Amino acid sequence: YELVQEDFLKYARLPAMTKDRCRVDIGCNIEFIEEIPSAVLHGAEGIGLYRTEFIYINRDRLPTEEEHFAHYRQAVGIEGLAWSTIRTFDLGGDKFTSDPKLAKEMNPQLGLRAIRFCLKEVEQFKVQLRAIIRAGAFGKLRVMFPMVSGIEEIHEAKRIFDIVKGDLIEEHVPIGRDIEIGVMIEVPSAGIVAEELAKEVDFFSIGTNDLIQYVLAIDRINERVAYLYEPLHPAVLRLIAQITAAGHRNGIRVAMCGEMAGEPLYALILLGLELDELSMNPLGIPRMKKIIQNATLQESRELLNKVLAFNSATEIRDYVEHYMRRRFPEEFQGAGQ
Amino acid sequence: YELVQEDFLKYARLPAMTKDRCRVDIGCNIEFIEEIPSAVLHGAEGIGLYRTEFIYINRDRLPTEEEHFAHYRQAVGIEGLAWSTIRTFDLGGDKFTSDPKLAKEMNPQLGLRAIRFCLKEVEQFKVQLRAIIRAGAFGKLRVMFPMVSGIEEIHEAKRIFDIVKGDLIEEHVPIGRDIEIGVMIEVPSAGIVAEELAKEVDFFSIGTNDLIQYVLAIDRINERVAYLYEPLHPAVLRLIAQITAAGHRNGIRVAMCGEMAGEPLYALILLGLELDELSMNPLGIPRMKKIIQNATLQESRELLNKVLAFNSATEIRDYVEHYMRRRFPEEFQGAGQ
Ligand SMILES: [Mg+2]
Ligand SMILES: [Mg+2]
Repeated sequence: YELVQEDFLKYARLPAMTKDRCRVDIGCNIEFIEEIPSAVLHGAEGIGLYRTEFIYINRDRLPTEEEHFAHYRQAVGIEGLAWSTIRTFDLGGDKFTSDPKLAKEMNPQLGLRAIRFCLKEVEQFKVQLRAIIRAGAFGKLRVMFPMVSGIEEIHEAKRIFDIVKGDLIEEHVPIGRDIEIGVMIEVPSAGIVAEELAKEVDFFSIGTNDLIQYVLAIDRINERVAYLYEPLHPAVLRLIAQITAAGHRNGIRVAMCGEMAGEPLYALILLGLELDELSMNPLGIPRMKKIIQNATLQESRELLNKVLAFNSATEIRDYVEHYMRRRFPEEFQGAGQ
Repeated sequence: YELVQEDFLKYARLPAMTKDRCRVDIGCNIEFIEEIPSAVLHGAEGIGLYRTEFIYINRDRLPTEEEHFAHYRQAVGIEGLAWSTIRTFDLGGDKFTSDPKLAKEMNPQLGLRAIRFCLKEVEQFKVQLRAIIRAGAFGKLRVMFPMVSGIEEIHEAKRIFDIVKGDLIEEHVPIGRDIEIGVMIEVPSAGIVAEELAKEVDFFSIGTNDLIQYVLAIDRINERVAYLYEPLHPAVLRLIAQITAAGHRNGIRVAMCGEMAGEPLYALILLGLELDELSMNPLGIPRMKKIIQNATLQESRELLNKVLAFNSATEIRDYVEHYMRRRFPEEFQGAGQ
């Protein structure tokens, strides 16, 4: 086991660069500051997704700006991590209230969540943004907005961001001046209008967990339909390819931070999709890096083009599994992933 | 009022043909046979959507084949209606069971519904299909499957359809030999793979109510997010344009049967989108026909192309409302729709 561990960490320390010298940046998805040292050890090069919901839940009152800031401050400017990406509040209002009326949504996944909620509760959103912008004074920081469905929401979120930033400047508070603003692409409509969104932001981060749910109209935690949840569905792959193409045409980076980004079986598909950054559970990084280091961009493009011509998710999955087992036998022994 | 009524019915009796002679077929959405005479009076030319869920709900036991057949038989071969489209079961299993466990889905709109449910409960699905195929002996009948997300489901539904048809032939039961099989396009993935689906079916019917919900990740009956439900969202219009183009490239008809299809404000947009058939609440038919009869396909295409270049739903809505109020002042007086 220690040998395996040592072997893995060897891959972890090196960049995720293919044999034909295409480099993918590798980020980590984290929820707590305490996870950072392990993430660095496992080869994270930045924080691709810092979830901030924990700051809000299980409390009696809303978090203060200082409470937010105390967390964010610790997530930026970390040795060994080149960037940190904070995702703004991504829950529904029911998550920090005991009012049962607020919690009553028949389909919460299609309800008042994330940026929708923040654009209604602007004062609360501003508190979080103030803390984020202040944390930006201490290192390379990116902020991203979840559940954006179209250009109006990104306009509005940026407008509020600018107001908050202006306030902080007036107050002579130290701030990050070059914070990058990104949008999560996880609502299908955002994927379809990616060309326009790309002109408004500095980067995309594709949130595959939700994107796949909505594209396939599947609640992935409902075990009765979980069999239909399929990252390799041709509709999902095509939409992602469109999103990365739209991002690149407009000169912005395209990251992916859903679970799909950390699945080694999809490594070549992800390379073929031309993602600039993959952000994942830190423990998955060494294996993903190892596969990327042993692959080529060319074969990845060929594999992607091959499977994009298939009609069904079943054919794509069978082909990818077979290809990956043959190509990386020691990584994919036995049946399936 | 009688004058208005008389005036309206004048438009109702004529086809929905534009001044430049583009004809759109007009269907009606119905739930009960009793609605048919009024639908014919209001100008329906066929049944675009016959909902069959009522046969299942509020009962102690599942409906028999004869019960299904008794309903369907009355919906085909009706004088004045050139076609009848039966949609197969479109609910979750919780709708005809008293077992509370079955009803527990956190996000029922993303759950085991419609074709998903039918492909699990094949025996029950076969009972409905037998009745539909038998009803096809009495007139021009089409059947369509709701909530299809990809090609596997349509393959499977057609396979079961063929088995049932084969059984009926063996039993020497009179059947419809030329029943058209269609797929509802209402899951985003189905829209994205429309090209492939078009090769498998005889027609598309775009179910905009659900399609818009999933594309925008909005539960339209949740009033907290209803403000985001927007048929004129650029992502929705683009996806519909892709769907009709894919259908037509493959030589099949493309209908629309969601509420969007019956909204007079969208009449020119719908014409521009090249839909072959609009199916709506019967009471809405005269007004829709009147507008189409007074419009041209050319202006509709120009309007659509104009708004497809806009970035935001707000701009599109403003432009369409302004255009329609100016163009059809007596139809769109006052503010908005
Ligand atoms: Mg998400
Ligand atoms: Mg539907």
